[in-house]
Amino acid sequence: MRIGIDLGGTSITGAVVDEQYHILAKKTIPTRRARPSTAIIADMGRLALSLMDQLNLTVQEITCLGIGSPGILDKHGGIVIYSNNFDWHHIDLRGEISQYIARPVFLENDANCAVLGESLAGAARGVQSVVMITLGTGVGGGIILGKQLYSGFNQAANVIGHTTLISGGEVCTCGRRGCFECYASVTALIRIAEQEANHVPDSMLHHYRRQDGELTGKNIFDAAKQGDPCALKVLELYFFYIAEGITNVINVLQPEAVVIGGALSNEGEYLLQPIRQHVRQDVYCKEVALPQISAAQLGGDAGVIGAAFLKEYQ
Amino acid sequence: MRIGIDLGGTSITGAVVDEQYHILAKKTIPTRRARPSTAIIADMGRLALSLMDQLNLTVQEITCLGIGSPGILDKHGGIVIYSNNFDWHHIDLRGEISQYIARPVFLENDANCAVLGESLAGAARGVQSVVMITLGTGVGGGIILGKQLYSGFNQAANVIGHTTLISGGEVCTCGRRGCFECYASVTALIRIAEQEANHVPDSMLHHYRRQDGELTGKNIFDAAKQGDPCALKVLELYFFYIAEGITNVINVLQPEAVVIGGALSNEGEYLLQPIRQHVRQDVYCKEVALPQISAAQLGGDAGVIGAAFLKEYQ
Repeated sequence: MRIGIDLGGTSITGAVVDEQYHILAKKTIPTRRARPSTAIIADMGRLALSLMDQLNLTVQEITCLGIGSPGILDKHGGIVIYSNNFDWHHIDLRGEISQYIARPVFLENDANCAVLGESLAGAARGVQSVVMITLGTGVGGGIILGKQLYSGFNQAANVIGHTTLISGGEVCTCGRRGCFECYASVTALIRIAEQEANHVPDSMLHHYRRQDGELTGKNIFDAAKQGDPCALKVLELYFFYIAEGITNVINVLQPEAVVIGGALSNEGEYLLQPIRQHVRQDVYCKEVALPQISAAQLGGDAGVIGAAFLKEYQ
Repeated sequence: MRIGIDLGGTSITGAVVDEQYHILAKKTIPTRRARPSTAIIADMGRLALSLMDQLNLTVQEITCLGIGSPGILDKHGGIVIYSNNFDWHHIDLRGEISQYIARPVFLENDANCAVLGESLAGAARGVQSVVMITLGTGVGGGIILGKQLYSGFNQAANVIGHTTLISGGEVCTCGRRGCFECYASVTALIRIAEQEANHVPDSMLHHYRRQDGELTGKNIFDAAKQGDPCALKVLELYFFYIAEGITNVINVLQPEAVVIGGALSNEGEYLLQPIRQHVRQDVYCKEVALPQISAAQLGGDAGVIGAAFLKEYQ
């Protein structure tokens, strides 16, 4: 039995996971990230203890505790070096949480926890190498090579969202211009759709926007599925951008699998089919087997399952 | 003692290399690539034999023969699956060369041989992970992770030159638009410089172009070093493009070292210093150690040295 915790900007999810990757108990609490780090980490510790209580588990029955965290980590030292989400600087996450539960604690980037979860129990089962691209507010990246999590020599790798798609293009939160994230995140989809809706006042997109005050990824897809030409045009461009970034990943890394995560992965083949078509056409080597491209299967559970199994894959 | 052969579109270089990575004998012959593959491979075999002759070596004194080849390879099968340079399709390179020298034969992408050479005996000695970016007619890529050559699940990885810098930009030979190669190759440098020279008839660039009929990487650098504003402007943009691609590599892979190869690497700090400055400014994680960025040290020898040691690093 293991405990995995996914620390997010909005909520913290903890789960008890068995050796077959089943979640036996799960609980989500609000992060309230403006609080001091000690208060947040105390809540994470108490979350773990309450999950054990729920299943009547003793501390000896827990193999380890794994934590997926945003930011830049020193995973060997158990430290969050820096997180812009939390404004954390050199927080001893492992040291502090060990006050609550005296078991080995492992720390890893949240995106890497998600790719590990999908590789153990989701879309990338049985695969040696996989790159996960998570489309959300930003674009996250997780990489497994040779069945191990990849982090680079300084543990700061996998920032796939911040590779250039259009150098000199849209201003990115990272300070550069034209990053993949600026074109393939859900934020970007909404920006592109709102611009397009402005130009086409009789479009369904424009109608949704007026009705709801803003567009969402979901209603852009809904409008396209109902045949709205404006939404179809937006998604055609959006799928192309996603495919451009995936083609880049494939040309450089050729992983066995590419997994697309985030809420949009629920769109399944509607999202995947046009992306696969672009990739097949654009990839550099057309004479070899292509990586499989699929949607994440575990949703929010990927992070806690991956976190629970960090012990074996770092 | 080992033999390394670097098969290029213009010439074939072979060398006998000792266990300390010293080249004991080296010879270059023209490829004449329009010939049948059997004739080219026969020349490669005879080249190996003539090098052994030169040093009075018996076949038993040769540990192995390694070949760096362009194209898409099945290195386990010893096959060149496809090379557009040679119009080769499923050529049994290992089988054919084994008729000339009965020692174990190893095959690898030429860019990976170069990065292996630099990692064993050149700019990336002692480093666990290195990405080499070779600026030439195109932009080549070689990757070593965890001291092993990286090739992806289908042996088609490392095509760093064909990742997007400006999606929808310059038409690339690979069929996409806006690849890194379209902006960072020497071909691209010359294109940018010729466009700029056209606009500034009193520039040194324009003068060189009129005098020599065309520009070269070398005279563009020469003009800039003499203070020609037009050449300085061109190089400013060119260095930015190179840095954009290197920043992308660093954000995703965070290798310990990035090595820049190709003829321009002779420009040393004049090339490296502005690139390092851009990278430091643009890289996603500024709170961690940055990969060292340096120029290749072995020139054309990197490929044969790397090829000679494929046995241990594939």
